[in-house]
Amino acid sequence: MIKKDCMIGIVGLGGMGNWHRETIESIDGLKVAGIYDIKESRVTFAKECGVDTYNSLEELLGDERIDLVLVATPNDMHKPIAIQAMRAGKNVVSEKPVTLSSSDLQEMINVSEETGMFFTVHQNRRWDEDYLTMKKIFDEKLLGEVFRIESRVHGSRGIPGDWRQEKEKGGGMVLDWGVHLLDQILQMMGKTKLKTVYATVTNITNQVVDDGFTAHLVFDSGVEVLVEVGTSNFISLPRWYMLGQDGTAIIEDWKLTGRIVRATGLNEADVVPVRTAAGLTKTMAPRRDDTIKTEELPIVKSDIRDFYRNVMSVIQNSEEPKIKLPEVMRVMKLMEAIFESSNNQEVIKFE
Amino acid sequence: MIKKDCMIGIVGLGGMGNWHRETIESIDGLKVAGIYDIKESRVTFAKECGVDTYNSLEELLGDERIDLVLVATPNDMHKPIAIQAMRAGKNVVSEKPVTLSSSDLQEMINVSEETGMFFTVHQNRRWDEDYLTMKKIFDEKLLGEVFRIESRVHGSRGIPGDWRQEKEKGGGMVLDWGVHLLDQILQMMGKTKLKTVYATVTNITNQVVDDGFTAHLVFDSGVEVLVEVGTSNFISLPRWYMLGQDGTAIIEDWKLTGRIVRATGLNEADVVPVRTAAGLTKTMAPRRDDTIKTEELPIVKSDIRDFYRNVMSVIQNSEEPKIKLPEVMRVMKLMEAIFESSNNQEVIKFE
Repeated sequence: MIKKDCMIGIVGLGGMGNWHRETIESIDGLKVAGIYDIKESRVTFAKECGVDTYNSLEELLGDERIDLVLVATPNDMHKPIAIQAMRAGKNVVSEKPVTLSSSDLQEMINVSEETGMFFTVHQNRRWDEDYLTMKKIFDEKLLGEVFRIESRVHGSRGIPGDWRQEKEKGGGMVLDWGVHLLDQILQMMGKTKLKTVYATVTNITNQVVDDGFTAHLVFDSGVEVLVEVGTSNFISLPRWYMLGQDGTAIIEDWKLTGRIVRATGLNEADVVPVRTAAGLTKTMAPRRDDTIKTEELPIVKSDIRDFYRNVMSVIQNSEEPKIKLPEVMRVMKLMEAIFESSNNQEVIKFE
Repeated sequence: MIKKDCMIGIVGLGGMGNWHRETIESIDGLKVAGIYDIKESRVTFAKECGVDTYNSLEELLGDERIDLVLVATPNDMHKPIAIQAMRAGKNVVSEKPVTLSSSDLQEMINVSEETGMFFTVHQNRRWDEDYLTMKKIFDEKLLGEVFRIESRVHGSRGIPGDWRQEKEKGGGMVLDWGVHLLDQILQMMGKTKLKTVYATVTNITNQVVDDGFTAHLVFDSGVEVLVEVGTSNFISLPRWYMLGQDGTAIIEDWKLTGRIVRATGLNEADVVPVRTAAGLTKTMAPRRDDTIKTEELPIVKSDIRDFYRNVMSVIQNSEEPKIKLPEVMRVMKLMEAIFESSNNQEVIKFE
């Protein structure tokens, strides 16, 4: 028996929708049936790419060849389109953030259970190699017991000048980038409960949607995590910074420039104090070179196409989903806790 | 009339006590009368340096030539010695932290008022050039309106292996380094009220005294400040990081390596997204070189001897003190708020 290709209908062919199209076309067994977009310019672009187009969402959902619908629209449209697609008998992949609130997400989960359709979210940055490398360092205790992790993305362009500036469309950086960084951290911490959340949200470039945030998470294991997104940062702090009892790891940038530094065990009998204009310090003096050693990062490679390969396997009932809905719900509730903490200036007891 | 030298008695000739001795000897009009130390080795050292020594604190305080007593003992002894010295008719400079609690400090202030003796604290790092440079950038709005400041010191040696490891002697990094960094920030913010404090304190290297902390301060003006001390950090994050609406400033290290980066005003019509293993981002893509410009830091020079010159002038009634007791009290209360926030996992409403 020849196995038939899994056919995908794409709703929304913006930047990410097109990234999905290209990715899907590079995976064996997966095929784009066609796209639907409300913008004429994107329909024209699709035709130029030789991709079939539908004249309406209903026409796309009526195509019996389609097994899976990818929703890559502005964030507020994920829910109605995903629900409509599941009710039409389609499995659904939604772009992130899955929707704007945990109660909206619960509605989507309910429809998935009612209809028996598979529904998942494209938390693609679980495949980012910077994250996977830091997760390996954490899991394998390459720094000993880790006590602090800092995960940041810094840009200087403010938020993009499209629907991402509109609150009701699900704009803002907590939903846009926070959803990735928070999901990564919760994955890294595994089953450890998140005890408390303290966060501040910024409105530097506009007063409508948040253009950044700082969230301080304290886990039951004692690990503290700082998650930060900034869009008015003309100098970027490192993407990752991890402190363990035996050493420190850093990833500076998207190119995975970074290193691990740990103590050699050699003591420094005679610490030379740092003398500043106003005093001296031994505690904060740099180390003598022979008391530390620098190592390369244990870079982990990944293939983002494994996301879709997993989705295909789940549809064929042969695998567990890699992105599970309770995980997505936990991140959604964490984003709500961040806004609550920032609005009320209080520490939220999370779990 | 020949103006007589201001004579100083030093109590405690440890690392900082000796730093004071050297500093005092380089200032016209100021002279070390002698020292008192409970350690025989330090007395021997003093004699080797040609410095007079006293056999007891009482003998030092009984020396009528002495105008000013410097207290550079372990932190828990600042209070009894300072009080004894003021009651003996001496003006007093105490090393920082002035004492272990705000109620202890209030006792010291009361004795200063009762006796009419001048009493101040050696908040020497107000003269650190890294701080003064960042303060200039802030005051002169060289980044436009500043919205976030991060001030960190990172070392990797844990806390020093002396009395600084003992809680009852006033050990721990909040009191040791926090007192400087918090004082600097409160000075930089001027009369702006500090609304809220959220902090976590670490015990990585021992369970007795804190070996680091992270404090998040939100000021009435909206400026957010992160103050952090770490002693298990094998890679140091930058000493200073300041974000304004028009640009970012950084000071990397004690050598004042750093820069200012700001937008040129040129827009980037075609942002090239960063492509990672798992996706793409325009928001967080590095800037094209022609849309930003990098400038040197406006380094501010300082002379720590101005601290003692001011103390002399205050004693002669010709100047206001540079380090005022209400400022010292505010920092002490802030350190107490940091412990309270960390212990109770809550946001403290400060002012």
